[in-house]
Amino acid sequence: GRTGVAEAVLCDSKLPEQIAAILDQAIADRRRLLLTRLRPDQFHALPHSCRSGLDFDPSSRTAILGAPRPGREPKTGAVIVAAGTSDLAVASEAARTLSFHGYAAPVIADVGVAGLWRLMARLEEIRTARVVIAIAGMEGALFSVLAGLVEAPVIALPSSVGYGVAANGQAALHSALASCAPGVLAVNIDNGFGAAAAAIKILNLSS
Amino acid sequence: GRTGVAEAVLCDSKLPEQIAAILDQAIADRRRLLLTRLRPDQFHALPHSCRSGLDFDPSSRTAILGAPRPGREPKTGAVIVAAGTSDLAVASEAARTLSFHGYAAPVIADVGVAGLWRLMARLEEIRTARVVIAIAGMEGALFSVLAGLVEAPVIALPSSVGYGVAANGQAALHSALASCAPGVLAVNIDNGFGAAAAAIKILNLSS
Amino acid sequence: GRTGVAEAVLCDSKLPEQIAAILDQAIADRRRLLLTRLRPDQFHALPHSCRSGLDFDPSSRTAILGAPRPGREPKTGAVIVAAGTSDLAVASEAARTLSFHGYAAPVIADVGVAGLWRLMARLEEIRTARVVIAIAGMEGALFSVLAGLVEAPVIALPSSVGYGVAANGQAALHSALASCAPGVLAVNIDNGFGAAAAAIKILNLSS
Amino acid sequence: GRTGVAEAVLCDSKLPEQIAAILDQAIADRRRLLLTRLRPDQFHALPHSCRSGLDFDPSSRTAILGAPRPGREPKTGAVIVAAGTSDLAVASEAARTLSFHGYAAPVIADVGVAGLWRLMARLEEIRTARVVIAIAGMEGALFSVLAGLVEAPVIALPSSVGYGVAANGQAALHSALASCAPGVLAVNIDNGFGAAAAAIKILNLSS
Amino acid sequence: GRTGVAEAVLCDSKLPEQIAAILDQAIADRRRLLLTRLRPDQFHALPHSCRSGLDFDPSSRTAILGAPRPGREPKTGAVIVAAGTSDLAVASEAARTLSFHGYAAPVIADVGVAGLWRLMARLEEIRTARVVIAIAGMEGALFSVLAGLVEAPVIALPSSVGYGVAANGQAALHSALASCAPGVLAVNIDNGFGAAAAAIKILNLSS
Amino acid sequence: GRTGVAEAVLCDSKLPEQIAAILDQAIADRRRLLLTRLRPDQFHALPHSCRSGLDFDPSSRTAILGAPRPGREPKTGAVIVAAGTSDLAVASEAARTLSFHGYAAPVIADVGVAGLWRLMARLEEIRTARVVIAIAGMEGALFSVLAGLVEAPVIALPSSVGYGVAANGQAALHSALASCAPGVLAVNIDNGFGAAAAAIKILNLSS
Amino acid sequence: GRTGVAEAVLCDSKLPEQIAAILDQAIADRRRLLLTRLRPDQFHALPHSCRSGLDFDPSSRTAILGAPRPGREPKTGAVIVAAGTSDLAVASEAARTLSFHGYAAPVIADVGVAGLWRLMARLEEIRTARVVIAIAGMEGALFSVLAGLVEAPVIALPSSVGYGVAANGQAALHSALASCAPGVLAVNIDNGFGAAAAAIKILNLSS
Amino acid sequence: GRTGVAEAVLCDSKLPEQIAAILDQAIADRRRLLLTRLRPDQFHALPHSCRSGLDFDPSSRTAILGAPRPGREPKTGAVIVAAGTSDLAVASEAARTLSFHGYAAPVIADVGVAGLWRLMARLEEIRTARVVIAIAGMEGALFSVLAGLVEAPVIALPSSVGYGVAANGQAALHSALASCAPGVLAVNIDNGFGAAAAAIKILNLSS
Ligand SMILES: Nc1ncnc2c1ncn2[C@@H]1O[C@H](COP(=O)(O)O)[C@@H](O)[C@H]1O
Ligand SMILES: Nc1ncnc2c1ncn2[C@@H]1O[C@H](COP(=O)(O)O)[C@@H](O)[C@H]1O
Ligand SMILES: Nc1ncnc2c1ncn2[C@@H]1O[C@H](COP(=O)(O)O)[C@@H](O)[C@H]1O
Ligand SMILES: Nc1ncnc2c1ncn2[C@@H]1O[C@H](COP(=O)(O)O)[C@@H](O)[C@H]1O
Ligand SMILES: [Mg+2]
Ligand SMILES: [Mg+2]
Ligand SMILES: [Mg+2]
Ligand SMILES: [Mg+2]
Ligand SMILES: [Mg+2]
Ligand SMILES: [Mg+2]
Ligand SMILES: [Mg+2]
Ligand SMILES: [Mg+2]
Repeated sequence: GRTGVAEAVLCDSKLPEQIAAILDQAIADRRRLLLTRLRPDQFHALPHSCRSGLDFDPSSRTAILGAPRPGREPKTGAVIVAAGTSDLAVASEAARTLSFHGYAAPVIADVGVAGLWRLMARLEEIRTARVVIAIAGMEGALFSVLAGLVEAPVIALPSSVGYGVAANGQAALHSALASCAPGVLAVNIDNGFGAAAAAIKILNLSS
Repeated sequence: GRTGVAEAVLCDSKLPEQIAAILDQAIADRRRLLLTRLRPDQFHALPHSCRSGLDFDPSSRTAILGAPRPGREPKTGAVIVAAGTSDLAVASEAARTLSFHGYAAPVIADVGVAGLWRLMARLEEIRTARVVIAIAGMEGALFSVLAGLVEAPVIALPSSVGYGVAANGQAALHSALASCAPGVLAVNIDNGFGAAAAAIKILNLSS
Repeated sequence: GRTGVAEAVLCDSKLPEQIAAILDQAIADRRRLLLTRLRPDQFHALPHSCRSGLDFDPSSRTAILGAPRPGREPKTGAVIVAAGTSDLAVASEAARTLSFHGYAAPVIADVGVAGLWRLMARLEEIRTARVVIAIAGMEGALFSVLAGLVEAPVIALPSSVGYGVAANGQAALHSALASCAPGVLAVNIDNGFGAAAAAIKILNLSS
Repeated sequence: GRTGVAEAVLCDSKLPEQIAAILDQAIADRRRLLLTRLRPDQFHALPHSCRSGLDFDPSSRTAILGAPRPGREPKTGAVIVAAGTSDLAVASEAARTLSFHGYAAPVIADVGVAGLWRLMARLEEIRTARVVIAIAGMEGALFSVLAGLVEAPVIALPSSVGYGVAANGQAALHSALASCAPGVLAVNIDNGFGAAAAAIKILNLSS
Repeated sequence: GRTGVAEAVLCDSKLPEQIAAILDQAIADRRRLLLTRLRPDQFHALPHSCRSGLDFDPSSRTAILGAPRPGREPKTGAVIVAAGTSDLAVASEAARTLSFHGYAAPVIADVGVAGLWRLMARLEEIRTARVVIAIAGMEGALFSVLAGLVEAPVIALPSSVGYGVAANGQAALHSALASCAPGVLAVNIDNGFGAAAAAIKILNLSS
Repeated sequence: GRTGVAEAVLCDSKLPEQIAAILDQAIADRRRLLLTRLRPDQFHALPHSCRSGLDFDPSSRTAILGAPRPGREPKTGAVIVAAGTSDLAVASEAARTLSFHGYAAPVIADVGVAGLWRLMARLEEIRTARVVIAIAGMEGALFSVLAGLVEAPVIALPSSVGYGVAANGQAALHSALASCAPGVLAVNIDNGFGAAAAAIKILNLSS
Repeated sequence: GRTGVAEAVLCDSKLPEQIAAILDQAIADRRRLLLTRLRPDQFHALPHSCRSGLDFDPSSRTAILGAPRPGREPKTGAVIVAAGTSDLAVASEAARTLSFHGYAAPVIADVGVAGLWRLMARLEEIRTARVVIAIAGMEGALFSVLAGLVEAPVIALPSSVGYGVAANGQAALHSALASCAPGVLAVNIDNGFGAAAAAIKILNLSS
Repeated sequence: GRTGVAEAVLCDSKLPEQIAAILDQAIADRRRLLLTRLRPDQFHALPHSCRSGLDFDPSSRTAILGAPRPGREPKTGAVIVAAGTSDLAVASEAARTLSFHGYAAPVIADVGVAGLWRLMARLEEIRTARVVIAIAGMEGALFSVLAGLVEAPVIALPSSVGYGVAANGQAALHSALASCAPGVLAVNIDNGFGAAAAAIKILNLSS
């Protein structure tokens, strides 16, 4: 892409034949391709010729067409921090998007602020990052606590984990935007692709 | 009151003559009285006979009619924790309501989570409380952090400090309700009176 | 837990293998464990070794690992009041959380304010409580009526029973927060676990 | 009016000269007229010839042009019940609209459900009504309690008294609509004119 | 009921065994009973002894236990007006509630305001009513047009028919409440039972 | 403008010196200019040299720089229909925008649907239009009624007249969008400029 | 229709027998008919006699009864522009509605503003239109960009494609209404029928 | 600050004496200080000793205590792009925050997408940036267009410029979050300080 990040194919509301056509074209063009929000039922409805070339991950609902260039070490710099186990699917979408662009990122999970000592125990590791993607649902207090503790830019990725007033991620999103810690950056709810795309743009700056 | 807490007079939308009539009746009955949300312009429009008997505090907009019973030591047990300086007016409404009912409560301010070490420095003091009133606007991350650190029940009192998605205290309220820390209790935005009334009911249990 | 209340395992969005791993660890550590929002399909997908040690209650969607310590009488002090029969699943989540922590609580149901005499008939029983958990959906008028009648702190637990403007419990939640009765405390919609956790913190104060 | 209720002149966003023109026409036609939401500054900007014929009430912001027909006893049947003193301005708008149409209605105030005994003390009087207009702000629990106690139709008139989640009357409106008591009828927030208009249509049925 | 309207059994979130228990008790007491929001799957899960005594109507999801008293003519006075065919299920809930209480009401459908002449063609019939229940989804313009044309009180019953900004009946509800026609009365979205209960209270006044 | 409509200067949040600079440039360029949302205080703060060339209309808060080309008859085709007197300021913004572009449009006011006969009396006149701009606040029922009666495209312009659920024009906007009459087109609340701009684009098609 | 556009049959919430009755009547009257929001399960539940005469398109969920008049060339003038592939179902509803009324409209897809050059490449084609229907979900930036580039009126048709804050098309709708480009016209979310109906009314003006 | 960005003093809801105390302490400590949301009336209420050391800018409502270290060239890398003139106050808050931290940033204004060629004319200049702060109110289409054209990370800063559905910046915020361009990052409405703080964290990475 002209912007340093590849456009992904958002599969959510595409028919299998539409996805297949896009894949066939990319295969013909020998282009690598990232597919997001690809449901298992959509994947299984693809013709075998398409499916066989895809690295499909059902938990993150991403698929990657085309192998990474051989001999290339993945670049580092991003760390993904998730408040709970429930946020791992979104964390995977971010990690796979980073990986597609040549970046490896560790995922540090289950460090929500209700148990602050668990977060503190991982702080040194987090502080090695040049950019942090923080994922939380419910009330999203993790964003502010983290941003007050690290120097790197923090990308807050609210997840739709929660119920009642937190249903669909609204409370976490608002915590990200209203954070009292300077410089928290937000993306849309469950937008692991977007958080990773932004992280890549930041990491690309210094490479 | 039959419920262990006195009904206060909510003055916000009462005319001065209505407030004066209530005060005159209480004076005649030799009853003590707590007035809340009394604006300075309302206070100054009261007849002098009413005003002279009132202990009026413009910052919390509360007024108290009648002296506490002499020789009574204020009871302890509540601690009020405020994230920022901007939350102090609401903190005062809570403190004055507690005081009216015979309870003294220290106010610990400017301990928002963007500077976690400031909160940690006051933690021992906060842990002496039998009930904690926590006040925060913006994203209200303080509620979850605090509730993960203390054994006492935490009453989350969202304040209307904030702008954009946090305007009018909605984001802080949602953080209180969606907190991932077990057992956070919420009252309405800016409801210092209600938070104190609940704290008093809890403190009354053990006295 | 450091806060007097155990962290429960919120199972809603966890995979069976993730839940099994948590259970295996607790069994190895000989720790008791409370699981909430565990759907029957999740429970039945657990390995038999996990399932057999669990006391699973499908209506409240809770499961308890580990027997209570023998010879211990359950402590009293909490009463659960539910406006309608539809609120009983939420009431059960609260009762089971209390029970896990060694507290027994009677459930008084079908006492909504449209039939005030039904509530009045149970008032003496309710007044024995040191803390009341009140559950209501629809317009949540029960919270204010009850809080005006009892001395104990009232924890308002809005349920998602309702349609139209009451859909998903919003109207009941707002009634809890805006109550004209002093000192009503609110938790998130359908949060039986949180209401019980707060009640336990309050009951622990005096024990 | 063809519907048994006169169209009123909603003055809120009309210029004084527009109001004056309407009044002059009515005077020429010898028609009686009800003006609502007429602010004092608008009233005082009217030419003296208009002002002198008007019975203006600043608290309800209504004005009436033209005397009632002499020798006519006001008809009865409606009772207005207000939860708090703060609801009295809205109560007056309703009472004045009823009066304009030849109906007298007592106003029973300060009977909110936080003090249920105050409501019970006035119940016999309320039960004489053929139609009840109930006014409440905050959480609006009064609507459900009242509708469970009287046989007459209850028109719930939410007032904009309240703050936080109750700001602008939304919580009270939702309580009216979601009431668990059968047959509560709602009008818009602060719409004393509309509540009275509906009451008049009901009372007209049997006269 | 003490209020002139029977409490109905709202079955939506009740288990079949709970519904059966209520029915058995009513059969034992020889009481008639109205059940609302009873889904076919719930009805079919009832024991045969319960089902056989019930007059179940799947479209309105209502069931009636017990025959009307023989020799009684249904009373008249209510008319139900529905904007579209899609509103007929809600119309049926209202009609069946009226019927349970001894009132017959014609349903006049497909008279939405986009084809005003269709409404005008039925106006004489509508004008015979002592109370009108008007049902509309989408933008709910029918409420205002009708209320400007008839003398009887108009109960606006917004239906959840619609999409986009009209999804779930919100736009129609707001049209009912904000109507520029004096005296429109509103009930909750899809609340056919409530609209009928209110109509019955009004009709009972004059009988 | 390249789109057949001139960009207007939205003055709402501009400083007088910013507006003056824009005007000076236009005068130097001998360009005509339309200014919208220009408050009287802003107008009066402009230097005299700017003010003298402006045709300022305080009610619509518009100002026009430069005379229409002489000898040109204004073109016809648009009709503006306003539900109430309160909508006249918005109607003027639309009319002045049309006039700036060489179109004259009659304003037909006070024809809200609560008095349907008033609308019917003006129908022939309205039916002469090639495009209708319909303005209504409150519940906006006018949009649907009108669109069902005329062949021309109807541009619904919701006004912010209203209170309670209609506050700020939301209810009227939703009625416009959810209209059951085919082909109603909506613009933003109070956007008289935008409604006129769209009307001009439509009228330009056939000229 | 009296308005130049046929009323379509909105099938969404109609029973198959209700749809069949409408079709039978139209067949008897030899009228053409457009059905919208007809789900495949509804279509297949129709009696064969109905189905055989229908031209059903499952992607747009429209069906057409009756052939176009032979020898008639479809009229031109409308162009449909869709931001993404996901918007094609809504685009089809609009195209089929136009076609039913004798208008042919090309669909230009996958020209969202994230890749501005793709839109620019099609601009000449779009500029041939007398009216443009623009479809976009997510943030709907396409509406403003397009309206700044073409002279024809632009009808913005927000689609429900999106998640998080864009769920259900709200963000795109608000972009349409708040557009800084003069004269964007909006219809309800996913309302392909309405957008086409409005376009037809505009195209009819000049034919 | 420990995070590479100084905590600023948010003055909005602080009393002048509170601000003065903070300033006096900073003067005593010889610390530089950034004050945001300082209204002129607050500034003028400060004691002269405080005021004289402050560089106050009324348009951005920021004040800076303490001169930049002499001889230091401001660092470059950020560019601020504003859609309209109305966004300039927010742009200034961002620019002043950057300046306080030693970064200079040009402001490119009046390049909203309704006039795309104006944006294109400045594109080369914008492409020199290592991080772009984009400011827009109304529908915020600028964010997506810009992010599709530049390689640098784009921080979307929605402004509260707008009315109707765009009032208070909500529509622009949602456009930022729902952008179809990969990697747009959002901050709260009107949060110029936060956008700059995030930009500084990004720029600090490479210095
Ligand atoms: N998961 C995702 N969330 C947000 N945007 C996405 C996602 N996946 C792809 N996109 C972007 O959304 C657009 C998808 O467009 P299309 O695949 O053409 O419908 C492209 O600009 C993608 O880069
Ligand atoms: N600041 C406050 N917030 C919430 N409720 C209050 C407040 N002050 C008083 N109240 C209660 O609100 C009610 C006010 O009633 P009244 O003064 O009679 O209108 C009483 O039940 C008071 O206890
Ligand atoms: N306070 C009020 N609330 C609601 N509607 C009103 C009120 N006062 C008058 N109206 C109605 O609103 C319309 C006012 O129209 P107009 O005075 O012509 O702008 C008429 O139909 C009145 O009957
Ligand atoms: N009253 C109005 N409502 C909506 N848009 C307007 C209005 N007046 C002017 N505009 C448009 O808003 C933009 C104003 O931009 P500017 O004057 O540069 O801040 C231009 O595209 C105008 O055509
Ligand atoms: Mg965890
Ligand atoms: Mg501070
Ligand atoms: Mg019951
Ligand atoms: Mg009172
Ligand atoms: Mg129809
Ligand atoms: Mg009028
Ligand atoms: Mg695409
Ligand atoms: Mg401009």
